[in-house]
Amino acid sequence: MIAPEAAVDWSDWFAGRVSRMYASEIRELLKLLERPDVVSFAGGIPDPALFPMDAIRRAYSEILGDPVLGTSSLQYSVSEGYGPLRRWIVDYMRRRGVPCELENIVITSGSQQGLDFIAKLFIHPRDTVLVQEPTYLGALQAFNAYEPHYDVLFREKAAEYRRKAAENGGRVAFAYVVSDFANPSGETLSLADRRALLDLAQELHVPVLEDAAYEAIRFEGEPVPALAALAIERSGSIERSRVIYCGTFSKTVCPGLRVGWICAARDFVGKIVLAKQGGDLHSATINQMVVHRIASTMFDEHVRTLVTPYRRRRDAMLGALAAKMPAGVTWSKPEGGMFVWVTLPEGMDGAELLERSLLEERIGFVPGGAFSPNGAVRNTIRLNYSLAPEDVIAEGVARLGDLVSRAL
Amino acid sequence: MIAPEAAVDWSDWFAGRVSRMYASEIRELLKLLERPDVVSFAGGIPDPALFPMDAIRRAYSEILGDPVLGTSSLQYSVSEGYGPLRRWIVDYMRRRGVPCELENIVITSGSQQGLDFIAKLFIHPRDTVLVQEPTYLGALQAFNAYEPHYDVLFREKAAEYRRKAAENGGRVAFAYVVSDFANPSGETLSLADRRALLDLAQELHVPVLEDAAYEAIRFEGEPVPALAALAIERSGSIERSRVIYCGTFSKTVCPGLRVGWICAARDFVGKIVLAKQGGDLHSATINQMVVHRIASTMFDEHVRTLVTPYRRRRDAMLGALAAKMPAGVTWSKPEGGMFVWVTLPEGMDGAELLERSLLEERIGFVPGGAFSPNGAVRNTIRLNYSLAPEDVIAEGVARLGDLVSRAL
Repeated sequence: MIAPEAAVDWSDWFAGRVSRMYASEIRELLKLLERPDVVSFAGGIPDPALFPMDAIRRAYSEILGDPVLGTSSLQYSVSEGYGPLRRWIVDYMRRRGVPCELENIVITSGSQQGLDFIAKLFIHPRDTVLVQEPTYLGALQAFNAYEPHYDVLFREKAAEYRRKAAENGGRVAFAYVVSDFANPSGETLSLADRRALLDLAQELHVPVLEDAAYEAIRFEGEPVPALAALAIERSGSIERSRVIYCGTFSKTVCPGLRVGWICAARDFVGKIVLAKQGGDLHSATINQMVVHRIASTMFDEHVRTLVTPYRRRRDAMLGALAAKMPAGVTWSKPEGGMFVWVTLPEGMDGAELLERSLLEERIGFVPGGAFSPNGAVRNTIRLNYSLAPEDVIAEGVARLGDLVSRAL
Repeated sequence: MIAPEAAVDWSDWFAGRVSRMYASEIRELLKLLERPDVVSFAGGIPDPALFPMDAIRRAYSEILGDPVLGTSSLQYSVSEGYGPLRRWIVDYMRRRGVPCELENIVITSGSQQGLDFIAKLFIHPRDTVLVQEPTYLGALQAFNAYEPHYDVLFREKAAEYRRKAAENGGRVAFAYVVSDFANPSGETLSLADRRALLDLAQELHVPVLEDAAYEAIRFEGEPVPALAALAIERSGSIERSRVIYCGTFSKTVCPGLRVGWICAARDFVGKIVLAKQGGDLHSATINQMVVHRIASTMFDEHVRTLVTPYRRRRDAMLGALAAKMPAGVTWSKPEGGMFVWVTLPEGMDGAELLERSLLEERIGFVPGGAFSPNGAVRNTIRLNYSLAPEDVIAEGVARLGDLVSRAL
């Protein structure tokens, strides 16, 4: 005879990795966007007014109106992804200086899923992941589930990273960077830093995870070769390259379809395909087909239509920062992407500033501490300029400047 | 000076869990379907001719044609999922005898992703997962990434499961069942077995993962209450229930949109939402909206249009099996779903039969051994009847019967 069911505390039944998962401040802040009176510089949200809405609507209609494409668009499909889309990505990567073949490409549900799967492949508990500081919060969330430690890139030599990783009971699993107009810093990794990173990774014998989410959104300046391209220059072939490239259509087409990709040696890609099979079988078939139509008919042309308004908004933000921020505040000057990284005077706390900002000014942003694996860089904030109109940006940043002056 | 890059063998750099991922025979067999001369009883593929194509096309068009819905359908959205769809699922679950609220529902990319996330939450390496034999291959693939052992349900008492799990260096993590018209067995768990399973789980103090992928596709007979419903009857509230219910629209609407859900206590759901944030941020926004339109306007009516053709195909398959299989062959008689499970005479091997079948008869199916965590039940095969027309099923099974007779 079994006793009646009682209340259960499951906390000790979750695997260790659960304790490493925590709610994203960004995701929680997304909820703020629903309040019409808040000017939000939070989020990393592209402007929906710039989505290729008509083309997407036409693509769905044409695909679903075609008797053969229509049924296959709603059916199960292979874990590798939709063949024609993978072929388009092969051409795109080649244009980026990354010679590759179909077998080097797997479709993921946004680049976020790529980060999760790569963490699943490479992180043993207690391993160390090398990241920038600050780094993309969503990457930390993906990696945390596999219980790594973190160390900060570009500060030590290989032997020192290895020694500290061993002290933590593991080894260095991989290095992770957002190479262009990084979320959150807005910074682009220089050619010299890219070469140094490949040297470091080679000494450590680890893969490099290149998150290229923003690379297409360049306003000005010369593109820096992708880490994936530089690594192939060294090794002679993608099959001997240690760089795993994560791309996405979230910033160039739209995020709601959840279509991204990984480009890497087929050894890696084959394992990612297995992770994908076990993880969700495949990304939504119809969305892959729609993205393929958009990409193959209007990718470059559409990206050009994004660059001008985003550049103007960046200019509005940089202008207002220069005009209104008090002395002692500094910020990045991104050549593309969606973010400006503001460093407040030493001792000022970004999270405390957010509380005051929401209360006194109804302005939202993300406190910089969220982007540090170790809770550092607390005197920073991330400002997004891709969503608000120029005049709103100018006024919001001006009010934020006043607030920082009051908080000094 | 760094030595030039050499070929790298990454095999020892993958986390231990990678060695547990292997290619699915089912997914590989999907490729066979592309050969027009093969009659395939492989796959678990719904008939695309039964997809609500016009309604889906209309839903995409209306959503994308609406200025407010259209932009939000292509934008980032919350990890929990699209609110109106979650509310529809609340009502659906209540109709199934599972009283719940919005906070008990999270949207996943198919139920497959639910299996992955639950494994991520609960499996410590070397833990034991209790499964049926045979069980759903995709569940084994999802679980394997977290390095569990397996033990077979309904054979031992709780103390024995616990003892064996401890011998393997872990504990029992959870029990997993496909409750109705299981993939691959076609069997439905009886009320008595459901109660016994809840007793066992209570004694072991573990969650029960109920995979309800096929429950709506019932041809005949009385529905058995969901494990989720029975558990709430015992505990008085979903918040004290140990059952985690995975549902999907893949069999009732279509699989290519990748929309499923988890219904469970909010303790669990909150953790799944974190796994979802780190895993892929959210499921495709537009597909959730489309599924909501289909579900809220025509779910019951559409499911009724599926049941008749699937029942006829099952009848064709059972009839041909009875007419053509030699003595010593037995099979399940499913009251719904998509599969008949055929047990061959002892000593006959399903995988060897498949090789001969493809060569001699151009007929595909899945060898039963793929569905055992321990490679048992090798003298079995799984036949799918949801895809082929009745006359093709009748003829194909007849030829398969001849082949089995020749192989005796």
